[in-house]
Amino acid sequence: MLIETDILAKNNRMAQANRSYFQEKGLFVLNLVSSPGSGKTSILERTLKDMAGACRPAVIEGDQQTDNDAVRIAATGVPVKQINTGAGCHLDAHMVLHASEAFDLDNLDLLLIENVGNLVCPASFDLGEHHKVVVLSVTEGEDKPLKYPQMFRAADVMLLNKIDLLPYLDFDLESCKEMARRVSPGIEIFEVSSRSGEGMAAWYAWLGAGIEKAKG
Amino acid sequence: MLIETDILAKNNRMAQANRSYFQEKGLFVLNLVSSPGSGKTSILERTLKDMAGACRPAVIEGDQQTDNDAVRIAATGVPVKQINTGAGCHLDAHMVLHASEAFDLDNLDLLLIENVGNLVCPASFDLGEHHKVVVLSVTEGEDKPLKYPQMFRAADVMLLNKIDLLPYLDFDLESCKEMARRVSPGIEIFEVSSRSGEGMAAWYAWLGAGIEKAKG
Repeated sequence: MLIETDILAKNNRMAQANRSYFQEKGLFVLNLVSSPGSGKTSILERTLKDMAGACRPAVIEGDQQTDNDAVRIAATGVPVKQINTGAGCHLDAHMVLHASEAFDLDNLDLLLIENVGNLVCPASFDLGEHHKVVVLSVTEGEDKPLKYPQMFRAADVMLLNKIDLLPYLDFDLESCKEMARRVSPGIEIFEVSSRSGEGMAAWYAWLGAGIEKAKG
Repeated sequence: MLIETDILAKNNRMAQANRSYFQEKGLFVLNLVSSPGSGKTSILERTLKDMAGACRPAVIEGDQQTDNDAVRIAATGVPVKQINTGAGCHLDAHMVLHASEAFDLDNLDLLLIENVGNLVCPASFDLGEHHKVVVLSVTEGEDKPLKYPQMFRAADVMLLNKIDLLPYLDFDLESCKEMARRVSPGIEIFEVSSRSGEGMAAWYAWLGAGIEKAKG
C-alpha cells in the first residue's frame, strides 16, 4: 500500500508538470477512458473528420499491443503517436510527456489521449489532462457507473455511445444517466452514435468551447 | 518490477494450493474474464437456469462495487458469494479461497468465478481454476484478441457473445476468430447469445464434459 501510494504520488507530480506545460502551450487536453470496444477510436475518427479545419488536433493512442488505432487515426491526416504498454494496464504521466515530444505543440490547440481500454486502473492515473472523458457503450448495460464508481467519479464528461443500437437492446437510458449522476453529480452527458453521427454536434460544441477557453 | 514479480509469485503459490484443494473436492473451476458489460453475468444466469438439475454449481462474483451481480445470481437459487475489490482491478487466489469458505464444497461439482470486468489485469492472476474463459461481445469489435493478447493467450475458451446483434453491427466473425487463434492457437470458441439462447447448448456440453472429468 505504501508502494502504491508512492507510485501515485510520483505520477501526480509528473501530471502536474504536464498540466503546467500544456497550459503554457494553450492546449486543451482530454483523457478518453472506457472499457475495451466502447468506441473511443471511432468517436475520435468521426470527431477529427467532422472538425477538420475547426481545430488543430493531435492524438496519443494507448494500447497494450498493436498500432491498429494509430493507423486509423493517421488515415484522418491528424498527427498521432502510439504508446504500447505491453503488460501495462494504463497510461501514466511520464509516457504522455514523452509521446507529446512527437508533436509541434506550438501549432496545436487540442490533444486527445486515448487511454488503454480499462474501466478500472486509468482512474487513478492523472496524465495532466483538463478532463477525463468516459465513454460508455449502451451495449454494456446501465449499471456500469455504480460498478466502476472510481472511473465515473473521476470523469467530468460521459459519452453514451452506440445509441443507434438502442432499438435492439434492453437498455434503460434514463436509469443509466441517473446512476452516472449518483456517483458524479456534475457529470456532463452526451448521447451519441459515432456510426450514425447522432448527437455528435453537441459534443463538438463542448469541445470547441474548451479549446477556446484553453487558449486563454 | 521485482515487487510485481514477488506479488505474482506469491499469488501463484496460493493458486496452486487452491488448485490442489479444488481437485481434492472434485470441483470443476472456471474463471470468467472479459471487458465490463460483455455479458458474463447474463451468460451465468442463463447457464444456471438451463443446467439446473444437471450439476451442483456455486458462483463467486467479483466487482469493484455493488452486489448487483450476486443478487442476479441468487435469484436463480444457486449459492453465491460477492467479493468487492474496491480500488482493486482483479481477483486474486487469496480472495477466492476465502470466498469459497461460504460454500459446502463437498456438495458441489462446479465453481464459476466471475472476475472483475477488465481485459488486462486478471490475465496475470491465477486463481487455481481449471480454465480461464474469456467472454467477448461482438459489439466490442474484432481486433480485441490482438490488442489484449495476454488475456486471450491465457484463456482456453472464448465465448463470443451477443451474436443476436450481428445483423445490426459491422462485425466480421471469421476475422475475429482468426485473430483469437493467432494469439491462442488451441482456443475453443463458442458463438453464443445469452439473450436468445443461440449456441448455448454446445457450451453446456463442454461444461458437462469438464464436470465429469473433474470428478475423476
